[in-house]
Amino acid sequence: MKPADASAQKSPVAFSSLGQRAQPPTIAKLMAMALETPNLLSLAAGFTDNATLPVDFVRVATEAMLGNPGDREFLQYGTNQGRPRLRQQLAERLAKIELGLDATELQRGLFITNGSQQALYLAMQVLADPGDIILVDRPSYFVFLEMLSGLGLRAVSMPVDAEGKIDAPALGTLLDGLASNGEAQRIKAVYFVSYFSNPSARSLDEAEKNAIAGMLSSRGLLIPVVEDAAYRELYYSEAPAARSVLSLPTWRDFPKLYTATLTKPFATGLKIGYGLCTDEAWLKKMLHVKGHHDFGSANFNQAILEHALTTGNYDGELARIRPAYERKMRALHEALVHEGLPAAGWTWAAPSGGLYLWLEAPATLETGLDSAFCRACLDAGVLYVPGELCFGDQPAKNFIRLSFGVLGERDLAEAGRRFVTVVKRFV
Amino acid sequence: MKPADASAQKSPVAFSSLGQRAQPPTIAKLMAMALETPNLLSLAAGFTDNATLPVDFVRVATEAMLGNPGDREFLQYGTNQGRPRLRQQLAERLAKIELGLDATELQRGLFITNGSQQALYLAMQVLADPGDIILVDRPSYFVFLEMLSGLGLRAVSMPVDAEGKIDAPALGTLLDGLASNGEAQRIKAVYFVSYFSNPSARSLDEAEKNAIAGMLSSRGLLIPVVEDAAYRELYYSEAPAARSVLSLPTWRDFPKLYTATLTKPFATGLKIGYGLCTDEAWLKKMLHVKGHHDFGSANFNQAILEHALTTGNYDGELARIRPAYERKMRALHEALVHEGLPAAGWTWAAPSGGLYLWLEAPATLETGLDSAFCRACLDAGVLYVPGELCFGDQPAKNFIRLSFGVLGERDLAEAGRRFVTVVKRFV
Repeated sequence: MKPADASAQKSPVAFSSLGQRAQPPTIAKLMAMALETPNLLSLAAGFTDNATLPVDFVRVATEAMLGNPGDREFLQYGTNQGRPRLRQQLAERLAKIELGLDATELQRGLFITNGSQQALYLAMQVLADPGDIILVDRPSYFVFLEMLSGLGLRAVSMPVDAEGKIDAPALGTLLDGLASNGEAQRIKAVYFVSYFSNPSARSLDEAEKNAIAGMLSSRGLLIPVVEDAAYRELYYSEAPAARSVLSLPTWRDFPKLYTATLTKPFATGLKIGYGLCTDEAWLKKMLHVKGHHDFGSANFNQAILEHALTTGNYDGELARIRPAYERKMRALHEALVHEGLPAAGWTWAAPSGGLYLWLEAPATLETGLDSAFCRACLDAGVLYVPGELCFGDQPAKNFIRLSFGVLGERDLAEAGRRFVTVVKRFV
Repeated sequence: MKPADASAQKSPVAFSSLGQRAQPPTIAKLMAMALETPNLLSLAAGFTDNATLPVDFVRVATEAMLGNPGDREFLQYGTNQGRPRLRQQLAERLAKIELGLDATELQRGLFITNGSQQALYLAMQVLADPGDIILVDRPSYFVFLEMLSGLGLRAVSMPVDAEGKIDAPALGTLLDGLASNGEAQRIKAVYFVSYFSNPSARSLDEAEKNAIAGMLSSRGLLIPVVEDAAYRELYYSEAPAARSVLSLPTWRDFPKLYTATLTKPFATGLKIGYGLCTDEAWLKKMLHVKGHHDFGSANFNQAILEHALTTGNYDGELARIRPAYERKMRALHEALVHEGLPAAGWTWAAPSGGLYLWLEAPATLETGLDSAFCRACLDAGVLYVPGELCFGDQPAKNFIRLSFGVLGERDLAEAGRRFVTVVKRFV
C-alpha cells in the first residue's frame, strides 16, 4: 500500500460518474476541526446524549430475547423488507396518530432501513437522474443536500417568508419559472423535514403542507413527496398536532414516502429507520435496490426495537428521554439569553422538540467554516454548524445551527458563554 | 394505497434509469415458490443454521458491554468508516494469515459495512457506469451478478477448464477479443469468490490467481480487483492455504479490494462485513458514498463483534460451529451418494468448507426455475438454486446449487432422498 497522499494523487483507478462526483462530506471537516482543538465544546454534532441512552432496557431486552434457547431466529438473516411484526407495530403506531388510515395497508408499504438515511438514498436513487431537480425546504437537512449533490441532483429551495413559513405565492412563481424554462419535467420529488426540523427546529403546520400540495397539484405536478419525520417523536411535552402527508387530503393523489427513525430519539447505535411508501411500484423499485445494497437490515436490531414496541418499553424510555432534552435545550437557550445574545441582534426561537437551536445573526455577519467568526469560536473552544450548509441554493451566510444533543447541561451553559463572548467581539 | 397489481401498472412515478432497471431478485421468486409448497425442504436459501447460532455468547457479551453504566457509547452513533478498535482487530487478524503485510497499513484501508454486500455495492457504484464490463468468475455469486445487472453493468465470465480451474490461455484470448472490439477501456474491475465459493464450493489456488493477474498485467490492464472472501473463515478443519490478492506478489501493482464478513459464519442477524482497500483514492470514494447511504453501520453490532474478537470468543465460537457444518455437509453428500446420484451420471466434489454442494447433471438435463425437473422437485418437496443463475454470461443449464446451511442432518438426508428420487425419473 502507498501512503495516503501519494496514492490520492496517483490512483490508477478510473472512477464512474458517481465516483467522480463523490466528495468528502462537510461533517468530516467539522470532525477534523474538532479533533485538532483541545478542550473544545462541540455544538456541531447531531449525536444524542450518552447519559440517557437506554442501556438498561437493551440489556434486559437482549436477555429476554436470547434467554430462550429454542428461539434463536433473532441472530439469523431476516427479510429484505424487514420483520413483519415490527412493521405491523409501526403501522399500528402510525394509524393511531394519523386517523383514518388502515394499519394493514400501512404495513404493506412499510420497509425497514439502516437509519432513515438509507430510505432517503433509495428514494433518490430510483427517482432521479443527474441534472434532475428536487424541491427542498429552506433551510433543509444538510446530509440530504450533500447526498443530492453526490447523486448529481439539483436542490431547489421552496421560498419562505420572514417567519420561515412556506411562501405559497412565491412557490407558485418559482414553479411557473421552472415550467417556462422547460424544466417542469425535471422536478422529480419534493422533500421536507416537517417536525422539529434539522436544522431549523421548526415544524411545518398543516396550512404550509397544504400550500405546497396546492401549488403543485394546481400545476399538474403530482410528483413524489418525501416527508422526513425523523424528529416527530422527539417532542418535549406535547406531540405535534399537524398531520403528515399520509393523511392530509390535499396530498391524496400524490405518491408519498414518509421516512422516520426508531433509533434517533432512542439509541442511535442500533440504527434502525423505516420508510412508508404509498405507491406500490415505487416501493418495489426501492426494495429491489435495497436487495442489492444489503438484502435486509440487521435482524437482531430490528428484533430489539420490536421488543421495545411490543412491551411498551419504547414509550416508557421516550417518556424518560424527552424531558432530558428539554432541560438541555433550556440550559443552552438560557445561557445564550443570560449572556446577552439577543442584545447583540441575534434572534431564534426556543423549540418545543428536537435537538437544535437555529440562530439568525445580524445580516452582515458571515458564519461559514472559513469565516473569521468561525475561527474565533474555535479559538474560544466552541464549534457549530454553519447555516450556509443547510440551503439547497442561494445560501444565507448569517445562520448557525447549535446542537444540544451531546453535551450535559453544565457544558452547554459554558459553551453558550464562550459563544456569546465571541459574538460580542463581532458586534 | 392501491392494490399491488393495479398500481404496479398505473404508477404515476417517473423512475430514474436505475429505477427503470431495478428488477425483482430471483431470490424473491424462490421464496414465493417455497411459501406456496407445504412440507417443502429447501436446499435453496443461503441462510445459516439456527441450531449453532452463538446465542449464549451474544447474551453474555451484551451483559458485559452494557453492565458498566459509565460506558454507554455502544448505543451511540459510531463513525462512517467503523470502530477503530474493531478495524485494528481485523487488520491484525489478516496480518497473521497474510504474512508480510503491516497491520497498521491494513487498518487504514479497512472499513465496516452492512454485510460484505454493501462493500461490493459501493465498489461497483464508484467504479463503473452503465455499459461497463466486470470480469467475473465462472460460476459466480448470483446476488452479485444481479446487482451488476441492476447497475446496468455487463458481467463477462473468465473461462475455466473441465475441472473448473481458470483457463489462462482462454482468458488471454477473451481479453484480446475485447481489446480488438475496442472494449478494453470498458473493463472496470475483476471479481471472484476465492474461498469455498458461492456457488461452486471451490477455492482458487494461488496459481489460478496468479494466472489472472498475469493475463491482465501483460496487457497493461492494471484494473481494480475485488476478491470476495466471504467464506474464508468457514473451513471445516484446515484454513485454506492460498494467499489472497493482498499479499500475492503478482497482484502488487493492482488497486485491490478484499471483502469479507464477520457474521456469515457466526451470526448472520448482526450483519457486519468489511472491505479492505489498498488504493486510497478508491477507498475515499467508497466512504463518501457510504456517508450518503447511511453514514456508518450500526455501532452496537460492531461493538459486539469487537468484543468477540478481543476476548477470543470469536475463534471459540467458530471452532464450535465449523464441525457442525461439516457434519451437515456429510449428511447431504452421503445421502446423495447412498441414494445413487453418481450412478445417474451426476458429478460433484465434497467440499472442505462453505455451505454448498455444486452438482453437475448430465449435459442434456435442464434445471432452470421453469424446467420440468424443477417442477418435479417442488412436487416432491425439495427446492434448489438453478445453476444457470450463477453465470455472468453463456449460462450452463445443467448445474444445481444445494445449500446445507439451514436444515438439520435428518432433514438434509430426507431432502437428498427426495432429490435423487426425482433425478431417477429423469434419467
